[in-house]
Amino acid sequence: MSLNPQYEEIGKGFVQQYYALFDDPANRASVVNFYSATESFMTFEGHQIQGAPKILEKVQSLSFQKITRVITAVDSQPTFDGGVIINVLGRLKCDDDPPHAFSQVFTLKANANSFFVAHDIFRLNIHDSA
Amino acid sequence: MSLNPQYEEIGKGFVQQYYALFDDPANRASVVNFYSATESFMTFEGHQIQGAPKILEKVQSLSFQKITRVITAVDSQPTFDGGVIINVLGRLKCDDDPPHAFSQVFTLKANANSFFVAHDIFRLNIHDSA
Repeated sequence: MSLNPQYEEIGKGFVQQYYALFDDPANRASVVNFYSATESFMTFEGHQIQGAPKILEKVQSLSFQKITRVITAVDSQPTFDGGVIINVLGRLKCDDDPPHAFSQVFTLKANANSFFVAHDIFRLNIHDSA
Repeated sequence: MSLNPQYEEIGKGFVQQYYALFDDPANRASVVNFYSATESFMTFEGHQIQGAPKILEKVQSLSFQKITRVITAVDSQPTFDGGVIINVLGRLKCDDDPPHAFSQVFTLKANANSFFVAHDIFRLNIHDSA
């Protein structure tokens, strides 16, 4: 396999599709379909889990309902195994909480005619005061 | 190759080593040694370049001298080809500029007994006003 020339469109398309599901409480759990049963890693606010069942458990444990999200930047690069690595920077607001900046990295791995999320690292951009 | 159980130490060690060189104007150019001549990708504030010679050119074009950096979080995950993916969140201050939050993703790829940076995505966390 080699570099996928469509990496830019794949990255932007994935991010749009992923957050459309994640940000809607009625569809949030369906993001589990992006992950592999055993090979996917997620690090959510420093807490690391592996595999779709545990990732689903984590997603379902989130207590907020509605998420309002504004994407600032999506930077994608092709990987030499035909995948795409994506860095997302944006801001989100959960229910009535104050808005926060966030960053999220996804690595999409090619699998037959599709992709799965091999790596997912999410962090709210909260820094200790200077 | 398989998962490297030392991914956490490798991630933290790399980040420390990389920024110690990058933040010192006398040593900044030597970070080029972390990259492959042809296979490394860098996306710097949305500008994408490939290969060590162009990456060196980019690094040498940066006009600031001293960087003061505070790391907020380093999240690492092992990849199934023996590498490590790292997400860094922090704040930096260039010379007399105001401080900014930043995020940077590195993918380290195993190569004989060492690693090189296959992917590097850097963004200052500057968001449009709400």
